[in-house]
Amino acid sequence: MTNRVYNFSAGPAMLPTPVMQKIQEEFLNYQGLGVSIVEISHRLPVFREILDAAESLFRELVGLPKNYRVLFMHGGAQMQFSAVPLNLMARSTHKGSYFITGRWGTLAEKEARRYGKTEVLMDGKEFDYRQIPEYDIGRLDQDTTSYAHLTSNNTLYGTRWQTFPQTGNVPLVVDATSDILSREMNYSLFGVVYAGLQKNLGTSGTGLVIVREDLLGNALPETPKLMNYALIDEQHSIPNTINVFAVYVMRLVLEWVKEQGGVPEMEKLAEQKSGLLYEVLDQSEFYRAVAHPEHRSTTNVTFHFSHEKLLEKFLAEADKEGLFALKGHASVGGARASLYNAMPLEGVEVLAQFMKEFERKNG
Amino acid sequence: MTNRVYNFSAGPAMLPTPVMQKIQEEFLNYQGLGVSIVEISHRLPVFREILDAAESLFRELVGLPKNYRVLFMHGGAQMQFSAVPLNLMARSTHKGSYFITGRWGTLAEKEARRYGKTEVLMDGKEFDYRQIPEYDIGRLDQDTTSYAHLTSNNTLYGTRWQTFPQTGNVPLVVDATSDILSREMNYSLFGVVYAGLQKNLGTSGTGLVIVREDLLGNALPETPKLMNYALIDEQHSIPNTINVFAVYVMRLVLEWVKEQGGVPEMEKLAEQKSGLLYEVLDQSEFYRAVAHPEHRSTTNVTFHFSHEKLLEKFLAEADKEGLFALKGHASVGGARASLYNAMPLEGVEVLAQFMKEFERKNG
Repeated sequence: MTNRVYNFSAGPAMLPTPVMQKIQEEFLNYQGLGVSIVEISHRLPVFREILDAAESLFRELVGLPKNYRVLFMHGGAQMQFSAVPLNLMARSTHKGSYFITGRWGTLAEKEARRYGKTEVLMDGKEFDYRQIPEYDIGRLDQDTTSYAHLTSNNTLYGTRWQTFPQTGNVPLVVDATSDILSREMNYSLFGVVYAGLQKNLGTSGTGLVIVREDLLGNALPETPKLMNYALIDEQHSIPNTINVFAVYVMRLVLEWVKEQGGVPEMEKLAEQKSGLLYEVLDQSEFYRAVAHPEHRSTTNVTFHFSHEKLLEKFLAEADKEGLFALKGHASVGGARASLYNAMPLEGVEVLAQFMKEFERKNG
Repeated sequence: MTNRVYNFSAGPAMLPTPVMQKIQEEFLNYQGLGVSIVEISHRLPVFREILDAAESLFRELVGLPKNYRVLFMHGGAQMQFSAVPLNLMARSTHKGSYFITGRWGTLAEKEARRYGKTEVLMDGKEFDYRQIPEYDIGRLDQDTTSYAHLTSNNTLYGTRWQTFPQTGNVPLVVDATSDILSREMNYSLFGVVYAGLQKNLGTSGTGLVIVREDLLGNALPETPKLMNYALIDEQHSIPNTINVFAVYVMRLVLEWVKEQGGVPEMEKLAEQKSGLLYEVLDQSEFYRAVAHPEHRSTTNVTFHFSHEKLLEKFLAEADKEGLFALKGHASVGGARASLYNAMPLEGVEVLAQFMKEFERKNG
């Protein structure tokens, strides 16, 4: 394991090393069956146990109220940009309301227009998405709105909602892909929560969808079978062949999170890790933080350099120090350190030290 | 590796042992990067190389004409039951024609009704899908049919189309999930070919979709973004985070197929393997083959027992001999041996011998 680096990838992201070792160890022979977990039918009891364990661990870790269903669906978070309106538009007057705090919200709202009306309650574009703008919750019409949608954490800019709006009877839909299990959330405030698995929940290709049960059964007639929440729920997430590997990895990741002390511990660690980097940024004239201090993410820390041409040098030298994948998203530029649950504090300490050294040499 | 069994699972299915070993070996550290292939961004050149290699190997192995595009899509074959009508209905009078030879065809036709008219050109239900019925291709109206759809091999019953119908100007859409790369096919006869990856192409959760380029661009307005062929094509299969693991495994599987001698060799092997089992069935009064001899599959061999209660005994004893997952599909009953490319001839020899012994003892 000596040759594993500190991986700051925004996603697919670093997974806990003990989880990776366990996958490797049992990859050719799962529990003495003589076959790999990726070579068995998703209908066998041995897989059903994994699926059930993943669900119940998730329920336990987030304290999910009983009236919420846990679904696994193909395609990650972006498939939900379509699935949310397909499943929720019909519950009221076919209008979805969007809080737009970055690229993912923009894409989600655009996709929803296929299936009904949309309303933009707030858009942070004028701030280049460096902050979460003010909004007037009074604009949210309780009688004519099918749902309200937001992105809890914005990976590209490194911003997040510190607290969530109260939407009354309008179900609040949250894309929590990049901070699920990194912060405590009161799920009873939400109608739907979804997340691609490839950051804090494991590997890519699949999404976790949490739905309050009274919202099931409103799918539009044009909803593809495998995107219909009620049907996925009835079939216990296996109407067809599920991404067996992703569910298996998620179960191992959740066990690891539990061993670490659960979500409260992950939240504390995320604050500690991001705090170390924000301290470097705040004390520097050399680095420029992207996110407004009041809206800073604890999972994605983003920054530019006093001279943008220093970026390539920074990335090359970081690579040599075993600090991997620090390049920012193409649409924002600069650098980004993603600090999901699997990133140990030591990795961030090494990065913080490296950043100070780099400033000293190049500042 | 001594404890790997012969795995006859219908899917997710056995993968070649050298492929499994390679995945295991490099799982914690891909090509010296210090990270796993499942922990890197799908936008990095190192992953793009894998995606490109998977595509070009597939093109080479099946001799794909240049005017076909290769797409990776979320969700496996069943997602295509929706995607096919969503993408093709609008090219003519919104009518899809279905040849129904089993469960998958039935589900595909049912799903298509959401998006237009459907026509059933043939249905093998009266034969309990034990054979591919006669059909009158003259019924296929060249002027009013958006596409014609068939399932090339029927995993549940162990039947297959030996040759494919000539559909003229109507694009023929083929669900080839369970025989892709196990038989030579002339792709220029087809408009679309799709397959879940979890049988002959690797692991579950993702589909391979081959589309003739003139068919792109007809998607219905309600097509979810991630199901739109033209958009997936423009974005080179990564409009969003792709199932990185599945593409990586597929590339390794395709390299293995090439090393084995390619599709002609896989076809020969499939005929040899299935031939061994059909010989046992044909010489027996004890076993009853499900499929009509003229329509037998070379990848799924299905049979019942003279007394159905012998099934549990058969499965238990087979398990002890290291012959895994021989239970038939719940809707057909009996036993099923799936003989995809990764199943070595030796495994089938052991099974054939076991079947003869079991008959001798229980017949």
